[in-house]
Amino acid sequence: MAAHILRALACLVVVFLSYAVAIWPIPRTLLTGTSPAKLSPNFGINLHGLPSPPADVVAAISRTQSRLRSDSLERLVLGRGSADVQEIGRARLLTSLTATLRPGSPVESIAEETTAAIDSKDESYELSIPDDRGVATLVANSSLGLLRGLTTFEQLWYDHKGTKYTLEAPIHILDEPAFLVSIPRPAAAKLKANSGMNGSFPVADILRTLDAMSWVKLSILYWHVIDSQSFPLEVGAFPELSEKGAYSAEEVYTRTDVQRIVKYANERGIDVVMELDSPGHTTAISAAHPEHVACAAKSPWSKYASEPPAGQLRIASRSTLSFARTLFSSVAAALPGTMMSSGGDEVNLPCWEEDEETVADLARRNITIADALNEFVQTVQGVIKEHGKTPFIKSDMVLTHDVPVLDDTVVVVWQTSEDAAAVANRRLRLIHQPSNYFYLAYSFDPFANLTAAQHALVLGGQDSLLVARPTSAHEGPPFSGQMPLWSEQSSPENLDPIVWPRLAAGAEVFWTGATLPNGSPRLGANATSGTHALARLHELRYRLVDRGVKAIALQPKWCVLRPGECDLDS
Amino acid sequence: MAAHILRALACLVVVFLSYAVAIWPIPRTLLTGTSPAKLSPNFGINLHGLPSPPADVVAAISRTQSRLRSDSLERLVLGRGSADVQEIGRARLLTSLTATLRPGSPVESIAEETTAAIDSKDESYELSIPDDRGVATLVANSSLGLLRGLTTFEQLWYDHKGTKYTLEAPIHILDEPAFLVSIPRPAAAKLKANSGMNGSFPVADILRTLDAMSWVKLSILYWHVIDSQSFPLEVGAFPELSEKGAYSAEEVYTRTDVQRIVKYANERGIDVVMELDSPGHTTAISAAHPEHVACAAKSPWSKYASEPPAGQLRIASRSTLSFARTLFSSVAAALPGTMMSSGGDEVNLPCWEEDEETVADLARRNITIADALNEFVQTVQGVIKEHGKTPFIKSDMVLTHDVPVLDDTVVVVWQTSEDAAAVANRRLRLIHQPSNYFYLAYSFDPFANLTAAQHALVLGGQDSLLVARPTSAHEGPPFSGQMPLWSEQSSPENLDPIVWPRLAAGAEVFWTGATLPNGSPRLGANATSGTHALARLHELRYRLVDRGVKAIALQPKWCVLRPGECDLDS
Repeated sequence: MAAHILRALACLVVVFLSYAVAIWPIPRTLLTGTSPAKLSPNFGINLHGLPSPPADVVAAISRTQSRLRSDSLERLVLGRGSADVQEIGRARLLTSLTATLRPGSPVESIAEETTAAIDSKDESYELSIPDDRGVATLVANSSLGLLRGLTTFEQLWYDHKGTKYTLEAPIHILDEPAFLVSIPRPAAAKLKANSGMNGSFPVADILRTLDAMSWVKLSILYWHVIDSQSFPLEVGAFPELSEKGAYSAEEVYTRTDVQRIVKYANERGIDVVMELDSPGHTTAISAAHPEHVACAAKSPWSKYASEPPAGQLRIASRSTLSFARTLFSSVAAALPGTMMSSGGDEVNLPCWEEDEETVADLARRNITIADALNEFVQTVQGVIKEHGKTPFIKSDMVLTHDVPVLDDTVVVVWQTSEDAAAVANRRLRLIHQPSNYFYLAYSFDPFANLTAAQHALVLGGQDSLLVARPTSAHEGPPFSGQMPLWSEQSSPENLDPIVWPRLAAGAEVFWTGATLPNGSPRLGANATSGTHALARLHELRYRLVDRGVKAIALQPKWCVLRPGECDLDS
Repeated sequence: MAAHILRALACLVVVFLSYAVAIWPIPRTLLTGTSPAKLSPNFGINLHGLPSPPADVVAAISRTQSRLRSDSLERLVLGRGSADVQEIGRARLLTSLTATLRPGSPVESIAEETTAAIDSKDESYELSIPDDRGVATLVANSSLGLLRGLTTFEQLWYDHKGTKYTLEAPIHILDEPAFLVSIPRPAAAKLKANSGMNGSFPVADILRTLDAMSWVKLSILYWHVIDSQSFPLEVGAFPELSEKGAYSAEEVYTRTDVQRIVKYANERGIDVVMELDSPGHTTAISAAHPEHVACAAKSPWSKYASEPPAGQLRIASRSTLSFARTLFSSVAAALPGTMMSSGGDEVNLPCWEEDEETVADLARRNITIADALNEFVQTVQGVIKEHGKTPFIKSDMVLTHDVPVLDDTVVVVWQTSEDAAAVANRRLRLIHQPSNYFYLAYSFDPFANLTAAQHALVLGGQDSLLVARPTSAHEGPPFSGQMPLWSEQSSPENLDPIVWPRLAAGAEVFWTGATLPNGSPRLGANATSGTHALARLHELRYRLVDRGVKAIALQPKWCVLRPGECDLDS
């Protein structure tokens, strides 16, 4: 720890169990004092160490400036902001924040760093709010680190009649994701953007979701963009796929839309992993290319698929393999980033076994369905690799169908997190993505996939939070957890309240890790830590609403303003 | 059946199991043909029989005209509106609708009729869309009936590029609520407008909800306006109650707000039953009048209340009785309508037993808590009666606490509908209001409180519908069912998707009754009737979204456009 932090420590009253700072996720190291500080009406952010700063860094600073002005979250106490009038009056005035890229650091844009190889990212930053001078400081080794620090800085301030203040200066933060930077940080949102419900989520909805994701430092959007019901993705090599396979021309993500979404995400520190789910869930391809799809919309659907309508690519057909190769190549070529998924969930054997063309192809080539599946997976994984990307695949392809995959494949464990061990035993990296989505969305089971020992007081035992389990012990490196948004259960009408603030719970699980900055376990059998998280999650929720995201309330406001008084044991 | 209907029948192809009309709830009698008809660009509605029409009738016609122009629901088939281009081309042009108040009917406003005694309402109407002439006709015995008919008329039309058309002319409808008009119609929405979550629902949210309620002919808003956490109702006699008991001045329903909401509701055929929940759930009164509240915010709350914070009126105090009398009187005097509720759920005995003032009052007056509770209920029911209103009360007050109530009391059976029989055995009227609200909102159990025989095909077995059980056989007259919206589980952020289209399911249960217009049972063990309801409910949902209500989707659009193909047995 740097000498100046040690000096700062000497004059700090460290509030161990009750941070009154509305930060989510809570930083790895957080020291707070008891002095008030406030932003000058002319408060500015100055960038150092970047003579020609990347445009997205400048834009990030501008967004922070703007939010510092427009955010109006009052402290969630009785009387709200007016309770702090005296403190605000005597608060030290901060005139600026100096944001510095540490000397010797590479000068890259946030987007470049976000889409770089996952083991090359440095998101660390150091942030200091003094109580004895007028300038706050932010230092990082990367543009991405500066972004993370700015995001935290925005959350330090409450509003009262336009004045932005904190009661806890000096504040010192040393922060970075809990997992080693050599391992990809594991918090991601899954957006099934091909909403089965009502066409696709409008682009504006996705951008708003990306904004909110960046506010809680989520770093990956897993974009399940095509599905059985529609093909809403414009593909350069096959424009007919969306022309005929989407619900309507208005419900298509054009190449421009995709570029816009990916750029928007990358500039906010979010990498996009696009999934082209295959060979199952591909019925919508049959609208343009019926020759490539077996059992398309065959009845009864429940015999041939896990959801209607049935339909799978004809994996034994050389023509279909060629089609898949071109499809993946066309999409991969247009995407930045180093990750791409071929999906692979829920393939159905009777679909192929009863498909005359597939049966004929298998016989002609003297291969089995398993052989064909292997060949298909090798083909699409090969294309993904050719484009310099790490391939993702769904766990059932590996575990149920025993398909050999490339060594650096990332397996999405989506059925039950108990599968993680089996995947890890094959020395494959994995992502946890709890599949009990119905409960996630509607029954709010915070204990799903958690051990009994972890049940005690997960975030205070509130029932509307999702907490994903950090990857458990296994041989391969953990790749992490996703909060899936299954859009079968959602539509643009309820996107925000379904997702927020629930998604934020997982963000802290994976950013902050197992230990709170005061050294106590984040999930300890200690009511205080749970209450503490709940209070901050309330603040996050109110801040999200303030910023236009329709996050649902977690408790009656009476309880919000009186932390702990609504606990069942109080 | 009138002669002209019999004549119409002769040339109709009656489509028994597949109405392609987007009407919800489906009318009691519905005859449809197979000819296309469309509205003229200059289509108008002419009012007959009302030389000086009430302003709210004129306004209702104007709203219908406006919605006929702005509604843009295309038929939910493959190709949508474009599938009907040929039919639209040859469609008969309708130039006007003649709306007639039957000679001899009283000339009253919709609001007057809506707030009249519940056994005096006539909501019947007759609506004809010809296929051989240019004028449609609507006839009713009341302004309220005209409103119901206009509401149905709006739903008959699909849009294609601005042209409003039907494929099923001629259409003849004879309609009225399923229950005898001498019995109040039983579909109501419960709005706990004092949202425990985030203050109160903004007035605009309530008005939007009232609009949507009127579109599905729901006739009662049960307004649970005050609760433990806050007192958001401005009361003439005690302005301090909301000044000190609301979350903030912005989170108060002023008298102007209440008048506006009630007027808005009444003009749309919705009567408002306001509930002043008492003597429990009254903690918020203690902010201004601590002398009237026992165990206010006492810890642990779970010992003294069913939800935090604890607090109940001091029922043994003469001063508190006088306060309650004035409170009820002040609120009742400002409300039209013939119904008002004193609530009465979840009173807690230890709260009073450990309250020194209550113990002293009981001893001084030599009465028991039961005596005091009786006196309290008699007092507030007496005030309600004095204002010419029918008193409502919660079932636990009658069943758990055995409190004698006035003979014409309506009992809200909210804990379990199994209590209905016990209430009916006391010859009291009742409202069903299923209390398994968590499941309602999140697990979508359509079978809750239904007998096994009714399970078979409730609205096709969809899982996101609520179906309340029509009042079962009992001695007293049925008073009906409510769809409760428990705002502990909702906030303005998710009001629409939580409520819609779920609430509409109950509207049909109670408007249409047990029999579909084709004579088959609405809940028969016949998949077709379920599918039929689902298709119409999809249409309602799309129409709600079209009109700005964020109703959630019930199925992927692929399934919506292909009725039946996603059924599990297809």
